[in-house]
Amino acid sequence: METVFSVSLPPWLQDLLRSFKQSFPSAEEKMKWVIGLSRRNIEHGTGGPFAAAVFEENSGRLIAASANLVVYSGLSIAHAEITALSLAQKTLGKHRLSSHLSGRYELYSSCQPCAMCLGAIPWSGMSALICAAREEDARQVGFDEGHKPSDWIEALQKRGIDVRTDLLRSEAAGVIQTYAERGGTIY
Amino acid sequence: METVFSVSLPPWLQDLLRSFKQSFPSAEEKMKWVIGLSRRNIEHGTGGPFAAAVFEENSGRLIAASANLVVYSGLSIAHAEITALSLAQKTLGKHRLSSHLSGRYELYSSCQPCAMCLGAIPWSGMSALICAAREEDARQVGFDEGHKPSDWIEALQKRGIDVRTDLLRSEAAGVIQTYAERGGTIY
Repeated sequence: METVFSVSLPPWLQDLLRSFKQSFPSAEEKMKWVIGLSRRNIEHGTGGPFAAAVFEENSGRLIAASANLVVYSGLSIAHAEITALSLAQKTLGKHRLSSHLSGRYELYSSCQPCAMCLGAIPWSGMSALICAAREEDARQVGFDEGHKPSDWIEALQKRGIDVRTDLLRSEAAGVIQTYAERGGTIY
Repeated sequence: METVFSVSLPPWLQDLLRSFKQSFPSAEEKMKWVIGLSRRNIEHGTGGPFAAAVFEENSGRLIAASANLVVYSGLSIAHAEITALSLAQKTLGKHRLSSHLSGRYELYSSCQPCAMCLGAIPWSGMSALICAAREEDARQVGFDEGHKPSDWIEALQKRGIDVRTDLLRSEAAGVIQTYAERGGTIY
C-alpha cells in the first residue's frame, strides 16, 4: 500500500525553469508564455493541451509553472492548475499564498478551470485567476470539465479573487484543437 | 523554483498501514475505521478532523487511506479525499481506478467533500462515495466547504457514482466538534 505520492515536472519543463530569467511586463506576455507551455506539453507528449503558472502580482515574477500531467504522473489530480498551485506553495513555503501580510499571487491558466481546479483556487490563496480558452473550447473536443456552479466567476469574485477571462482565447483554443486533431488522449 | 512536490502520510499512519491485516465485513465497519483515523489525526496533531479511504467494493480490501494533511504537508490540496484517491492510484498503478475491465472502488470519507474534493471524485474513477458527517457539521465550527452546486449528489449519481450520506454521521461530527473545542486550526 503506497503511503507517499509525488508529482515531478517532465525534464523539458524542469530544464526550462532551471535557468529561468524571462520577465513579463504585461498580462498578455504572461499568458502567451503559459499558452506556449501548453503547446510544448503536447509536442513533448507529456500530457494534455493545458498549462498554468503562478506569478507575483506586483513584480510579475514567475513563482511556479506546470502543464497537464495526468497520464505522465499517473494521478488524476495532476491538472496544470493543481500542480502549479502546489509547486508555488512549495516554492514559497506556505500552504496559503496570499495573506494580509504577504503579497498577492495570480494564477494564469490556458483554459478555464474544471470543477476540481476551481474548487482548489480559494484554498490556495490566489488573489486572481486569468484564463485564456473557455471551458466550452475544451468541451468541444471531448474534455469533461465537470459539474461547476453556473455563477462560479461571481462566487470567486465574492471571495475577493479577481477573474479575467478570454485573454488570448483563440490562441489557447487553437492548441486544444491541434491536440484533438493529432488524436491526443481525451480523458 | 520547485519542480517536484510530494505528500507523505505521517509516521503514525504509515506504521498503521504497514502491517495492515484488518478486514471490513460491512459499510459500518469501514466507516468506523475511517472515523477512527480522523480522531487519531487530531490526537497526533497532524491535521484537521477529517479522514478518507478507498476500498475495493467486492472484497472490502483497503487500497489506500489518508487524513487531512494540509498544514502537515504545506499544501492546500492535501485534503483527506485528494490524498486517499492519489495514494490509491499509486497503489494500483493507474490514474483512473474503475474501468469496464477492472473492479469497482469506493471512497469512504468522514465528511461530505468540499468543492475541490467533489470535483476530483469523477476524475479518479470512483464507483461510489460514502460520507459520514454533513458539510454543515464542518461549516458549523468554521470550516469553509467552498461553493458547490446544490444538486451535487444527483450530479454524481448521473455519472454512475453511487452516493450514500449520513453513515455514522453523529460519530464523525463529534470528532469535528472535539477538534474545534480543543482550539484546532480552522482553515
